[in-house]
Amino acid sequence: MSARRPLIAFQGELGAFSQQAARQLCGPDVEVLPCTRFEDIFGCVKSGRAAGAIVPIENTLAGSVHENYDHLVNFELPIVAETSVRIVHNLIAPKGVKFSQIKRAFSHPVALNQCLDFFAKNPQIEKTPFYDTAGSVKMITEEGLTDAAAIASSVAAEIYGAHILRRSIESDRQNFTRFFLLRTSDHARRHPLRAAAHTQWKTSLVFSTRNIPGALFRALSAFALRDLNLIKIESRPLRGKPWEYLFYLDFLGRADSPVAVNALNHLRELADFLRILGCYPKGA
Amino acid sequence: MSARRPLIAFQGELGAFSQQAARQLCGPDVEVLPCTRFEDIFGCVKSGRAAGAIVPIENTLAGSVHENYDHLVNFELPIVAETSVRIVHNLIAPKGVKFSQIKRAFSHPVALNQCLDFFAKNPQIEKTPFYDTAGSVKMITEEGLTDAAAIASSVAAEIYGAHILRRSIESDRQNFTRFFLLRTSDHARRHPLRAAAHTQWKTSLVFSTRNIPGALFRALSAFALRDLNLIKIESRPLRGKPWEYLFYLDFLGRADSPVAVNALNHLRELADFLRILGCYPKGA
Repeated sequence: MSARRPLIAFQGELGAFSQQAARQLCGPDVEVLPCTRFEDIFGCVKSGRAAGAIVPIENTLAGSVHENYDHLVNFELPIVAETSVRIVHNLIAPKGVKFSQIKRAFSHPVALNQCLDFFAKNPQIEKTPFYDTAGSVKMITEEGLTDAAAIASSVAAEIYGAHILRRSIESDRQNFTRFFLLRTSDHARRHPLRAAAHTQWKTSLVFSTRNIPGALFRALSAFALRDLNLIKIESRPLRGKPWEYLFYLDFLGRADSPVAVNALNHLRELADFLRILGCYPKGA
Repeated sequence: MSARRPLIAFQGELGAFSQQAARQLCGPDVEVLPCTRFEDIFGCVKSGRAAGAIVPIENTLAGSVHENYDHLVNFELPIVAETSVRIVHNLIAPKGVKFSQIKRAFSHPVALNQCLDFFAKNPQIEKTPFYDTAGSVKMITEEGLTDAAAIASSVAAEIYGAHILRRSIESDRQNFTRFFLLRTSDHARRHPLRAAAHTQWKTSLVFSTRNIPGALFRALSAFALRDLNLIKIESRPLRGKPWEYLFYLDFLGRADSPVAVNALNHLRELADFLRILGCYPKGA
């Protein structure tokens, strides 16, 4: 692994929306390592094969990715940055292919379903399910199909040398995915985050309480009584453990500020379990 | 529409997991109306084409379905029941086809990805993306494929006259989806819910506050100070409206009990917006 160009692992094919998040967080020349499963990307960072990982954590239409919260808790890789990617779907074809030639559009069914208005207006184009958004661009260009397009990100069009026939064909533009950049604890220690004085910080944590009625209210008092701003709160029932809940909570502030240290000590008194997932500059 | 067999709308093909939820809530002989989009099922009930609808609202791995929360607010169809379905994936083939013949398995990519351990153990079977889990069973049986299987629910196998080669091939068994049964307000008024005296009730609501630090804490005081048990709380940032949040909240109790009426009046004082989505017997 070259020290100059650290590899960043993500889930999906080259050209996935995660790669766009990697560029936003690590620069346009970031070198990436595509993986099959979410678990694999955590494993790659833990084993040192990759220097960091990009994970999607929530989507404005589809909600929080609980699986990645579980991996954050189990692998103990700190969050060091966040970013948000607008999910823009483009109709992409091999170079030289015109819109009038397109009879089929390949993509992941979730992406196809997010473009139903486009398909209603263009009934000559058949929705064709494929394994992956970016993978469908790879396939149509490798096979040199002349009657087919793919639906994917603009990064995928660029990577596979295809061209965009129609931009932003998704029905709902309020479709954003929030991504975290993770590093090893060791890397995070050696490269403490620095940011301009006016930067706002966020801290993400997971905690559990045994019983909800008063418990959550009291847990939140640790923040409310210190005027700490909550950005996100979400409960998740623990299957097979009735009345036990995990809570995901983000607050505005650095975890090492005096007021946050006091709030977290207060929360530790009240919670059965508490894990700080990371402290990072608030994304744009 | 026959008064005897009310139609229940759901999203997906016949044999989808939503149909299993419909059976759990309305009996094994429920007549169903498959729709393409979530929005369509709400429209079908609103227009009277269907007597009710089944909607998935959250999944233990994938989180809350924000889109359906939005439709619940916009269409004002009350929740009258809830149920939980364990997502069991089965390898299904046309009758007479044996496991040793299978070279490809069709299904929705999300389902294929939830069976990666099975594919790792059976490398001779190729994962093949298809539009829909139940739709892939329909396709392999209609085409009479002899080298292909589908991955879907047992209901799908039954509906399309196929047989199950391997049961429960999903990697993670902690995969449950929670579904709501919706009716028109008029239907809900004419058929008030009755249940045994020991039945526990749940009330679901959505509210918003402008500013989080003290506001959420104060909002929760409406419940905590009255010992009402919260079952779920989730914040959702409103895009384009910084510092405005929607909260989904479920509490244990009937919305028309004296203590809940007081709590809801208290919450109304504190919230910018409050909508009761329904009150229904707690699912098993």
